[in-house]
Amino acid sequence: MRHLLSTRDLGRDEAIAILDVAEDMADVADREVRKLPTLRGKTVVNLFFEDSTRTRISFEAAAKRLSADVINFSAKGSSVSKGESLKDTAQTLAAIGADAVVIRHGASGAPLVLAQSAWIDAAIINAGDGTHEHPTQALLDAFTIRRRLHGRGSRGRALDGVSVTIVGDILHSRVARSNVWLLSTLGAEVTLVAPATLLPVGVRDWPVAVTYDLDEALDAIPDVVMMLRIQSERMHAAFFPNAREYSRQWGLGDERLARLAADSIVMHPGPMNRGLEISSGAADSPRSTVLEQVANGVSVRMAVLYLALSGQRGLAESTSVSHAGSNR
Amino acid sequence: MRHLLSTRDLGRDEAIAILDVAEDMADVADREVRKLPTLRGKTVVNLFFEDSTRTRISFEAAAKRLSADVINFSAKGSSVSKGESLKDTAQTLAAIGADAVVIRHGASGAPLVLAQSAWIDAAIINAGDGTHEHPTQALLDAFTIRRRLHGRGSRGRALDGVSVTIVGDILHSRVARSNVWLLSTLGAEVTLVAPATLLPVGVRDWPVAVTYDLDEALDAIPDVVMMLRIQSERMHAAFFPNAREYSRQWGLGDERLARLAADSIVMHPGPMNRGLEISSGAADSPRSTVLEQVANGVSVRMAVLYLALSGQRGLAESTSVSHAGSNR
Amino acid sequence: MRHLLSTRDLGRDEAIAILDVAEDMADVADREVRKLPTLRGKTVVNLFFEDSTRTRISFEAAAKRLSADVINFSAKGSSVSKGESLKDTAQTLAAIGADAVVIRHGASGAPLVLAQSAWIDAAIINAGDGTHEHPTQALLDAFTIRRRLHGRGSRGRALDGVSVTIVGDILHSRVARSNVWLLSTLGAEVTLVAPATLLPVGVRDWPVAVTYDLDEALDAIPDVVMMLRIQSERMHAAFFPNAREYSRQWGLGDERLARLAADSIVMHPGPMNRGLEISSGAADSPRSTVLEQVANGVSVRMAVLYLALSGQRGLAESTSVSHAGSNR
Repeated sequence: MRHLLSTRDLGRDEAIAILDVAEDMADVADREVRKLPTLRGKTVVNLFFEDSTRTRISFEAAAKRLSADVINFSAKGSSVSKGESLKDTAQTLAAIGADAVVIRHGASGAPLVLAQSAWIDAAIINAGDGTHEHPTQALLDAFTIRRRLHGRGSRGRALDGVSVTIVGDILHSRVARSNVWLLSTLGAEVTLVAPATLLPVGVRDWPVAVTYDLDEALDAIPDVVMMLRIQSERMHAAFFPNAREYSRQWGLGDERLARLAADSIVMHPGPMNRGLEISSGAADSPRSTVLEQVANGVSVRMAVLYLALSGQRGLAESTSVSHAGSNR
Repeated sequence: MRHLLSTRDLGRDEAIAILDVAEDMADVADREVRKLPTLRGKTVVNLFFEDSTRTRISFEAAAKRLSADVINFSAKGSSVSKGESLKDTAQTLAAIGADAVVIRHGASGAPLVLAQSAWIDAAIINAGDGTHEHPTQALLDAFTIRRRLHGRGSRGRALDGVSVTIVGDILHSRVARSNVWLLSTLGAEVTLVAPATLLPVGVRDWPVAVTYDLDEALDAIPDVVMMLRIQSERMHAAFFPNAREYSRQWGLGDERLARLAADSIVMHPGPMNRGLEISSGAADSPRSTVLEQVANGVSVRMAVLYLALSGQRGLAESTSVSHAGSNR
Repeated sequence: MRHLLSTRDLGRDEAIAILDVAEDMADVADREVRKLPTLRGKTVVNLFFEDSTRTRISFEAAAKRLSADVINFSAKGSSVSKGESLKDTAQTLAAIGADAVVIRHGASGAPLVLAQSAWIDAAIINAGDGTHEHPTQALLDAFTIRRRLHGRGSRGRALDGVSVTIVGDILHSRVARSNVWLLSTLGAEVTLVAPATLLPVGVRDWPVAVTYDLDEALDAIPDVVMMLRIQSERMHAAFFPNAREYSRQWGLGDERLARLAADSIVMHPGPMNRGLEISSGAADSPRSTVLEQVANGVSVRMAVLYLALSGQRGLAESTSVSHAGSNR
């Protein structure tokens, strides 16, 4: 794997391979000494044009566990936050010897621009670009689903036949987009539920079913219900009278939670608006995978950094990482 | 030691044990290569809801000398700075694998809330919470007193019979509170000196003597005079006409300095308002321990991180750290 | 080398020795594992009173490749950004055990104040002070010139007889000042080109030729043309009608580029104002060394940190660094 820009261009075998390496990394995380020497001498730059402490520290923790040096570069508010200087910034990072650049940017496609340019030779990891994609979020979601439904260590398996219902602001959500592409590739059946004003125009061309009615979607007893974060300013833009009305129609409350199958799971990328798109009962129920998602995020990002900085590996080769020795 | 939340709940033996490990750490600091491999593979998160560069870099230096990975998380101004999300933040830090969380928070009791919650399993180190406590400051103060009065390497000793006069804004000072509890536990005799408006209501129940008159307190020839930082907005709230009047009544000027015993010491937690609560003559005199306090801060924080992340140790066990081998 | 405060006080042999160690460091950078254990256990503090992400990450990358611990201390906007507390900040950094302080400060002379004070014993590295100096920039420029004109690995050589034309806002440029002193010391012949309003009063006492006419300067076919960054607010202060007029008279456009000798080089310290002081054609031409300058910056800063933290070394001793073993 050279870069990770989107899940749309990930092949099925490649996606499974990433999840399998993430399993190895999760095994490492269970050890007393969780540090691997694998990326010693490599430099990972976190280039964040938008604030996102959670995603930044997840990548930072992942890189440090692999013994990489991490340099944080918060471009927000600085002179480099203007689009026209992305080239200069990239060339600077190349020149100081960055091996990987983890980029979050407000403009959809900025990571692709970097990866296709001749400005920098580093691995480009998309940590969220505009409303386009957030591929490591989708990978950690898929990893979480596979672990919950198929058990730990279910290496080599995809998500064939798993039914996933994604609920909320699809229109603005890069998390939703990345999940749609990845989950479809892995064989899952995806249903989107949203008010009409929060669905993108081209959604009918996506490999998904669409409905406006959450209760109807829950009648199908999905294996997974993934709630998206609603941002109040966008809710208003969508002409909702108020949060209560949104919550009533598209929120996962305790009543709807009770209708789910016993082994179904409830997901949320965080941070949650408790009482808006999800009730505390649902957020804290045994079905909820919210915290596993965060923990799995570190394992998945370790896998992505490892694969990107070690070049494309076959499964057999990559699974040997967990036996490469701890850091003594 | 599981957490360090306050000095009020520290037993005498436990407090002495921390100071003794700090002696070992200070020995390490004197070496050419000051790095110990002790906490390799551990992750320490500095979670700061209030700015405090000095305290943050002291903990950062301490953790790095023990080879821990450090992740800085400045929550100020971000969405997580609101109280209601402390739970979500803590769960995120737990999920990314934080072994210790060093927390500074504007709300008294926030570290305790974390430690008692099921949100996170990490060691919680209080780096200052509201007007409640700042336990590592008190520990470094006690360490500084012991080293100055009893000499380096005075392992196993407490501060029995040492007289300490603490002067200034007791009402708002977490440093004063942590020192009162710790110094009393260690057998010192503490006197507080402050204007009546800067003393808390319940001070008569504390294990201290109280006076409003600094000159009277100095008549008793204390071994230690600890000046607190006065913050001008609070001085005004206490109805003082001006800084000069405060300085005249409660400042440690050159005249008062001259009245101290030759081997007494002058302490200040920093940063100092020279000319307000302390004169430059006092701040820079050989009696002043201001810089030793900062240096000792790193040793004490190394000791605290070491003890918290290695589990509770007896003295015999913990003192062996300095012989555990340098970092090769 | 104890400190690096300016290039004005660098001797010729000392300057050549730094460039030679930088050659060794550049060799290290070409390896697969680029990390040297040389500064393990040393603490480098980046103390930045002004924002400069580029310079900060260059020093951070350099220090980390030498295995030093790095602590970033952004003083901008904090209480320590006021001049009067430089002493307290320095003493704090001394007390936490800083071995080197890389300082950027808006006041000319601040690094010298630190180095001459008794406040701190650490090596002081000037990373840009007011309009005074930016010595590592000049060193990386000299290194870049030597590599381009004399070839890689031209250890021991100076720049005797090399003609360097520096163009732009000399008045406000610390980069220009540091280059004037260093390049002269190394035997280069320096010509300054600027509008009269952007030349300092004392320039006639500098070891340089001066002209107001860029085309006249280019008639001499210089080996090196170094364009300075123009800051628009300063351009206005210099009574220019507009950017186009500045560009026409003092910019390096495609026409002027075509007049240069085939093996001459075009330099810029970055970030560039494309279309103002330099055209994109010039910036991206094979003559341009802009990116090499950034890459060489890491090697030069590794050399400076190495020499400052290992004490003054003779050339023979210092060149052995590249054989000191990689990081295993």
